[in-house]
This record gives sequence, structure tokens and C-alpha cells, in this order.
Amino acid sequence: MHAYRSHTCADLTAANVGDTVRLSGWVHRIRDHGGVLFIDLRDHYGITQVLADSDSPAFAEIEKLRAEFCIRIDGVVKARDASLVNTKLKTGEIEVYARGMTVLGGADELPLPVFGEPDYPEDTRLSYRFLDLRRETMQANMVLRSDVVAEMRRRMWDQNFREFQTPIITASSPEGARDFLVPSRLHPGKFYALPQAPQQFKQLIMVSGYDRYFQIAPCFRDEDPRADRSPTDFYQLDLEMSFVEQDDVFAAVGPVLQGVFEKFGGGAKVDAAADWPQIPYAEALRKYGTDKPDLRNPIEMQVVSEHFRGSGFAIFAKLLENDGTEIRAIPAPGGGSRKFCDRMNAFAQAQGLPGMGYIFWRAGDDGLEAAGPLAKNIGPERTEAIRQQLGLGEGDAAFFLGGKPAQFEGVAGKARDEIGCELKLIDENRFAFAWIVDFPMYEETDDGRVDFSHNPFSMPQGGMDALSGDPLAVKGYQYDLACNGYELLSGAIRNHKPEIMYRAFEIAGYPNSEVDKRFGGMVKAFKYGAPPHGGCAAGIDRIVMLLAGEQNIRQVIMFPMTQRAEDLLLDAPSDPTNEQLRDLGLRLAPKE
Amino acid sequence: MHAYRSHTCADLTAANVGDTVRLSGWVHRIRDHGGVLFIDLRDHYGITQVLADSDSPAFAEIEKLRAEFCIRIDGVVKARDASLVNTKLKTGEIEVYARGMTVLGGADELPLPVFGEPDYPEDTRLSYRFLDLRRETMQANMVLRSDVVAEMRRRMWDQNFREFQTPIITASSPEGARDFLVPSRLHPGKFYALPQAPQQFKQLIMVSGYDRYFQIAPCFRDEDPRADRSPTDFYQLDLEMSFVEQDDVFAAVGPVLQGVFEKFGGGAKVDAAADWPQIPYAEALRKYGTDKPDLRNPIEMQVVSEHFRGSGFAIFAKLLENDGTEIRAIPAPGGGSRKFCDRMNAFAQAQGLPGMGYIFWRAGDDGLEAAGPLAKNIGPERTEAIRQQLGLGEGDAAFFLGGKPAQFEGVAGKARDEIGCELKLIDENRFAFAWIVDFPMYEETDDGRVDFSHNPFSMPQGGMDALSGDPLAVKGYQYDLACNGYELLSGAIRNHKPEIMYRAFEIAGYPNSEVDKRFGGMVKAFKYGAPPHGGCAAGIDRIVMLLAGEQNIRQVIMFPMTQRAEDLLLDAPSDPTNEQLRDLGLRLAPKE
Repeated sequence: MHAYRSHTCADLTAANVGDTVRLSGWVHRIRDHGGVLFIDLRDHYGITQVLADSDSPAFAEIEKLRAEFCIRIDGVVKARDASLVNTKLKTGEIEVYARGMTVLGGADELPLPVFGEPDYPEDTRLSYRFLDLRRETMQANMVLRSDVVAEMRRRMWDQNFREFQTPIITASSPEGARDFLVPSRLHPGKFYALPQAPQQFKQLIMVSGYDRYFQIAPCFRDEDPRADRSPTDFYQLDLEMSFVEQDDVFAAVGPVLQGVFEKFGGGAKVDAAADWPQIPYAEALRKYGTDKPDLRNPIEMQVVSEHFRGSGFAIFAKLLENDGTEIRAIPAPGGGSRKFCDRMNAFAQAQGLPGMGYIFWRAGDDGLEAAGPLAKNIGPERTEAIRQQLGLGEGDAAFFLGGKPAQFEGVAGKARDEIGCELKLIDENRFAFAWIVDFPMYEETDDGRVDFSHNPFSMPQGGMDALSGDPLAVKGYQYDLACNGYELLSGAIRNHKPEIMYRAFEIAGYPNSEVDKRFGGMVKAFKYGAPPHGGCAAGIDRIVMLLAGEQNIRQVIMFPMTQRAEDLLLDAPSDPTNEQLRDLGLRLAPKE
Repeated sequence: MHAYRSHTCADLTAANVGDTVRLSGWVHRIRDHGGVLFIDLRDHYGITQVLADSDSPAFAEIEKLRAEFCIRIDGVVKARDASLVNTKLKTGEIEVYARGMTVLGGADELPLPVFGEPDYPEDTRLSYRFLDLRRETMQANMVLRSDVVAEMRRRMWDQNFREFQTPIITASSPEGARDFLVPSRLHPGKFYALPQAPQQFKQLIMVSGYDRYFQIAPCFRDEDPRADRSPTDFYQLDLEMSFVEQDDVFAAVGPVLQGVFEKFGGGAKVDAAADWPQIPYAEALRKYGTDKPDLRNPIEMQVVSEHFRGSGFAIFAKLLENDGTEIRAIPAPGGGSRKFCDRMNAFAQAQGLPGMGYIFWRAGDDGLEAAGPLAKNIGPERTEAIRQQLGLGEGDAAFFLGGKPAQFEGVAGKARDEIGCELKLIDENRFAFAWIVDFPMYEETDDGRVDFSHNPFSMPQGGMDALSGDPLAVKGYQYDLACNGYELLSGAIRNHKPEIMYRAFEIAGYPNSEVDKRFGGMVKAFKYGAPPHGGCAAGIDRIVMLLAGEQNIRQVIMFPMTQRAEDLLLDAPSDPTNEQLRDLGLRLAPKE
């Protein structure tokens, strides 16, 4: 017989009754039922009930066991009484009568129970991650993550992509976030950087003629702590394709994600990738107040400025006299009560706005009646015109926000979410995807300069010609994929023409010499027969969080750092030795 | 029609004759055959012959093309004359008559030709890696690497392993090599390290109850330049299993590698993993002079001390009077000529030994005759006894080395390789695997201390009991896999018992406090129900090198560093900015 087990703790069924077996696992729970000891013996695969009475030679040793001892059991399989069959357990038809028990690894008093998963402070959980990871939820999350990544890989191969590994100790990358640096010992005083993403390498792979690349790629950004982001390394499904336009990228990656969400989404509805809408960036902001809209929420905002221009509602009427202002309505079907409207108004105030005006429609003496102070101010005709534009009726409401869109759009988007939630308009059992396209290439900075708004390596729509007009009007072949209010993926068709790249950077204030200095390798490559290419990168942690229904990224990473970027179990970061510093040609700056 | 291509450059066959097609790719070669221009148009998938004569509207533009321009061709498929069909090319039955051509990406004068792959200095190849990678050999190597890794993954999943990712920015690891450090910005003056291997994490994953882990894992060692090793990051197939003994690990990973070598070994013979011999470390040194023997070579060395003790060959006879000495013979079937024997003797001298004595057997007047000075010195009886022990006959030879094995074993092993090669005893068309087992736990250092000889985390054979005797006699459950003279894999059954671990380290001179300090996280984990576990890690670069028949690791890595650990294309390592140093709390030490 094998030294440790003849079966796993998920294997035994009624078919094994009478068999002599050997199991190994952990003491999940141990109970004494009047002189009979019951152990729930747990391994990665399942739980098997083990019992011993005083006739068992192992009884005395088993009596000493405590939770999370790792043990081996020799015994014989017995059928459970029909009344005791546990249908929730794969092994629920049987139990194992223990004749022998060996402790494989003893356990001290537990700082963190595994059984029952009581709530514990995160620092304790991370300090004893090896216990935390034994909990059922974490086992399920880690298995899910492993399965999701494998499924992505399988589907990428099926789409004729190949996985290539790109360097991890490399040059500083131009992604815009802060690099992690790695001091060089062979070249003291010089530093490598860890890649923020394999952006340059995947583009070089295209220039090198490999046609379709993907990688489950580790990425590194030295970012300040945020709850939903790993402060050190994270993984992306990174891909790039040659000889493609935007729709080719969508057609390649859409079905991959659709398949992953269908397989691991717990039965939630997933629209066919071919049907995912393409929403221009400007339209997304206008309708949803965000470039990552939750499309499970049917509410679409509308511009209703005309109804307020010169109206009796002086605040909006005045506001509209300024350039670049507008009034936007958030329709709230089913929200037609003063109580609800006041609550949403309070929500907007809590978000830092002066409030949201509203109108709601109820049954009055003469049929439909528009209520709320705003309706009075603008009068029945304008009110009715608004109602008709928004397609609302009895029992519905509408909220109004005004000003420069950039100043209220964010809150409007949150109010849309909140209204959708409160009115239960959101289908919780659905993953709703949308491509957000036509991102602007440039934006105006606070000090009035023009800078890249997103990725400087995207191809401007219209190519070189587009770069001779108003930079703020230039759109890029750049896109995101939104799902249920999250950004899952971001990508672009790249600018593969050196002359267009130089010009695009020039507009943002970078002379050619600076481009050559910062992105010299890539620009050089583009001068030797670069193919048109594009791609994207999808955040794996985020996808697994969505599929697992988790809010905290540390629930889907095996060994996460704390928010303070510390490893509490292995003790990192830590003090270097003097020898290490000397080897690297470094000194610590005195503490301030 | 698609913006760039209706087909790839490997798609078109006689079935497409008459079709209007669009192709994109690179100008592999362009030739002018008397007013007809021929382009070999190349993409990742293949080559298609394109032609244009002066009737083509594209002729004038095509005439201007040079090698490695990236272009799009619109044209019509024509059948080639039977006499011009190229059976080596997938598309060899057809050619495409060009009606239109668009330059997608122009190319400057090439610093490195792609067509024909002429030899170029490595610095040029790495500076223009994007051109180098377009060459047929590099495309094949990268595709091979990608396929090998995918096949490993598939086979690991089929064996019920799951892939889990472990941290890359983490704590210093105890593998014995030098860590790459990463300064922390949030904790100035403190450093993370990049993992030399995920050793601690995979053991923690086992303690966390995940049963079977694997990972295509990036590993980082700050090593001094060596031709066959990446100076920064490299990849391992890393795996770990719970509730296993050594043979379980062999049974899991053996078939994975067997399958990979069968699939990608170009038809070379691969023994079934179940038949791979298990050779104790001491026996490997004795028979082959190395712990990574090339078993394609049938030569096995033998100890022949007894035949020389007190013999007329004074050098060996004297030598044997010292403790720990022996005489070893390398049989050389078919090596029975003075010329060959002298050449091998010279080889040993070039390796720094005084030389190898030899005997060879030839047909003499009275039948078999032993020749060479050594035979004369020890006389016919001893000579004949040696011949019989070694099983040699007419036309064969034997070489002799003497002294303390540690001093001559290495050269003996090289001589065995050389003899096997010279005599063509090696089956070049075979991958011969062997497990090397029973490595010693400890070794004596030059200054007479006892230290771990390999991995301190291996379980000593015999457990705690074995640690009370002579440490140099203790063997570990530690193993390598050798193939054709290379070490492909290394692993161990781990020491999962804290008390045995403390004792094992104590023998090597580390007090408990030091163990707690250096490996605190792991020792802590072992105190909470650790399962018996073990695993191994296989070097992926090495495996791909063997399969590709390459000698230089940079031939199987997409973007390798130079031997001086520099990226010549993206310029790494480079100078940090003052702001970066300030953020990290670091200063550069003044140059010496």
C-alpha cells in the first residue's frame, strides 16, 4: 500500500464498503459522541468522516488529536446508516473505521481556525496565510483562479495565438506609472526596471514577425496603496496581433472572455461577444457618466438643456448662459415618490454636489401629475416635454444635474448606479459587456498644456492628417472593455509609423530627441518594416474577483502583499546587508 | 475584403487559382528576372511567391522595394508551370500576380540581413533583435519553445496538477545564489528580493493543502556571466506534491518529460520514463565520473585497484599505500591502437592530469597481445585479470587513473565522454535519461567544517535517527534527472518536521535562532500540520536547448540579456533619476 494514501478524501463511495483503505489529510473537526470519536478528515479534494470507538487500537492516539493536525488513517470503509447519509458530501454514503493513525505533522494551538471560517483581522490571516488558504472559500477562489487562467490559455491557443515569455528584469517602461527598480551588481550605480506591462516587448514581437502573441504576464507597478489593486505585482492576459484593425482584436479576445465568463460565471447570463455594443467614449460619458458603465442598469442619461433654457428655474437657466454647460437628466423608472427622490438628492449632496433637482409623476385628480419644486418652476409645458423626451410615466421620476459635464458627470454616473440599485433595475445574474471606443488622444492639462490622455502608442484615427488640426479633437484607435461597471481590458491599434509617432509626441510637447531617448528601441524597430498591429491587456485579478464575487483583491491572490506592500509571513521588505549594498554600489540615505 | 489580408502567406494552393487575394508580409527576397519582378513574400506562417511584370499597375512601386519592407499585395492567384512547382513550399504550386502594392512599413538599409541568415556578431543580433528574430532559425526556436511550454502545461494538468502563481516581488530566498534586490519606496531603506525559485512558496502551498502544484515559474539569480545561463531571469517547470515519496515524484514528472522529448525530439529515441534507471550518486561518480552522466555512452568505469596493489607499476602501487586512493579503469572498446591511446593520454594532460596509463589489446604472434608500457610493468597475469574484469578483447583498450577519486573523477568523466565520442559509441539519435538519487546531505568544506552539500530543505534518509551519526554518511531524499550529460531537473522530498529541520541545520552550524531568522515563515508553517511533500524543478531553457540542438541559451530566449547582463536594444541597465533615488532613500556610492 502507498505510504500515505490509497484514496483521496473525496474518493470513497458505497462501492468501497468493506475495503481496507489509507487516507491522509487534516483534522477538520473532531467530536466525541459518547465514547465514539468522529473526525472530519479533509484534504484538497474533499472530506471523509473517520470514526473510532474504544475497540479501535488507534482510539487513544486519536483522542489526543486537535484541529489541523496532519494525519494518516488506516481503516476500513463502512456504509453509513441510511438516516446518516450526507448528500452534500461526495463521500457522504460512507465512513472509515480507523484501525491505525499516524501523525504526519502536528499542529500548535491555532491562531486562526480553518473550520467554519470565522472572521479574522487581515493581518492575522496574512501572517498565517498557510492556515487561511486552507479555508474552504480560499481553496475555492484559488482553484477558480487556476481554472480561469488555464481556460484563457486554452482559448487563446485555440485562436492561434502563441504564448511567448518576455523579460522581467529589463528596461524602464513607458506606461506612465512608477517603475520598480532593480540595482545592477555587474554595472554598479545602474538600474534595471521591472516591466509595468510587456508593452514594448509585445510590439517588438510583432515587428519581429510573430503575428499573434499572448502571455499571462506578470506586471509591476510601484503604486500607492489601494484596496482593489496589488501594490506590487499583478497579472494580465496580454495579447498583440499583426495586420489587424480594431474589430479584429475584438473578434479575437471577445469570445475568449465570453467563454471564461460563461464557464465560471455561475450560470449568470453572458451576451455573445459578437453582440457586445461599441460605445464611443463621449457617448458613454453622456449616457452613463463613466467610461466603464454598468449596462445591467437600463438607465440612460439624456441632455435636456433646451427645456431649461430661459425657464423659470433660474439656477439652470443662468447656468446655461455659460459656455460648455448643459443640463442632464437621469430617468428613474419606478422612482416616483418624494421619499425616494429626497434620498437620491441627499446621495448627490453626500458626493459633494449642491444636490439634484427632480420631478416625479404620480396620479393626480386630473390624471398624471408632475410633482416636485422643479416642475412648478418650469411650468407644465416644459415638464411635459421633458417627460415625453425621457419616456416616463406615472410612478417614475427624473433627476437633473447641470453645469460643465466634467464637473458633474462623475457624480451623475454614481447617481445612475445608485438609482439603478435602489430601484432594483439591475439584473444581478448577468455579465453585461461593452466596448468603449474612440478615446480622445489628447487632453488639456490643468496648466493648459496638451498631453496624451491615455496611451501615447495608439494610432490616431485619421493618421498623420488628423494631427494637423485641433489635437483635442483627435480620437485614437483605443478601446476598453467594460463589464458590470468595471474596466476589464484596455487596448489599442498601435502607431507603427515613426513619422506619425514623432508628430504625435511633438503635439504633447516631446521633441524627437526625447522620443528617441525614451523609446529609442521601439522607434528603431519601427524603421525596419513594422507591420500594422494592435492588441490589449485584460486584468486577471479583476476578472477572477468578478467571477468569485469578491471585493478584495487579496481574496484571489495566493500570497498577496498587505496594502502597505509588506509580506507578513516571509518578512519583506527587509534590511539589506552591508555586503549587498556594497556589491550594488549603493548607500542608504540618512533618515529624515 | 479585410484591410490587410485574405490569406496568410502559407495558405494558397492550386485550389485558389483564379482567386483575387490580399496578402501582407515582408519582402524576404526580391529579384528582377528580365523585367519580371519576383518577391518572396514572408509572414510568420510561410512564404508566397509574388510576381509583377510591366503590365502590372504596381510594377513601378514594387521596383522600389527593398528587403524587409512590410507590404500589402493585392493580386490574383496563378498556377505555376509544372516545372516551376516548389514542393518545399506549402504554397509552391502557385504564385500571386500583383495588381496593387501598399507599403505598410518601410525599411531602412538593413544592419542584419534576414534572408539566408549569414553569421553576424551577437551584439549586432541583440541590438537589432527584431530583425534577428525574423530569421527562420529563430522563428523555429521560438515556436519550439512556445510549444514545449504549452505541452508541459497540458501534461501537468492531465496529471491533476494545478498551476498557481507565486509572488515575484518578495522576500530573499534561501537558494544559496545571489538575490536580485528591489528597493522599497513605501519603506525606504528596505529591500524586496526576486525569487531565486518559488521554493518557499511551493512548500507553503503544500502546507496550505493544495496537494499538487506546478508553475512555469520565472526565477532570478544574480549570477556571474556564463555562456549556458541567463544572467538575470530564467524559467523552470516547478512542481510540488503532498503525501508523496520519491518514486511518486518520478512517476508524475517522468512521463511529462518523456512526452515532451518524444513530441519535440525530432524522432530521437526516448526511453519510457518507467524504465529510467535510478543511479545512486556515489555509483554515478564511480561509473561515469559525474552526477550528470551521458548514458548514450555505454562505457562504465570500474575500480581496478587490486590489480595494481604491490604491482610492478610503482606509481600506482605507491599511490595505493595512501588512504582513500584507488585506481579506476575506463574501458575503451574499439580503441585498441597506440595512436588513439596516445591521443587520449594527451587529452588527460590537457585537462591538467599527469596523464592516463593505458593498455591495448591486439593480435600478436601467439594470439591476443597486451601492448603499452603499463602492461609490461605489471606483467601478463595482472594484465589478463584486468582484461577479464573489463570484458575487453582484441582491438580494445583501457585507460587508468589513480589517486583520490575527488581529484581525478572529473577528468575521468570527461575522458569517458571523449573516448565515447571519438570511438562513435554514442547514439546521437537518442535522449538517455537517468535519475541520480541518494545525494549526500552534507559535505566537508575546505576549512574542515560540515555544510549542506545541496539543498538544506531535503529530508535526510532515516530522519532524526540518521542525524545522530556521521553527518558525511547521511543521504538525502534528493535527486536529479540527467539527460545526455546535462542536469535537466533537481528535486527532493522535503524536510517537513521542524525538529528534524532544526537538528539538520545545527549539524551545519546554524543555531535554531538563525534558522528562525532566515526561514522563519517556513518553520512557522511546519508547526501547524505540515504534510509530507516533495517536488522538483526542471530547467526550461536547457530542455529547449537540447530539443533545438542549440549550444547558446540566447538562441532559445526571445529577448535575452548579453553575457554582461545588458539589454542592447532597450538600453538596460541605465542610470536612475535623482528623483527615483530620492524616492527610494538611496544614494550611489562614489566610484572607486
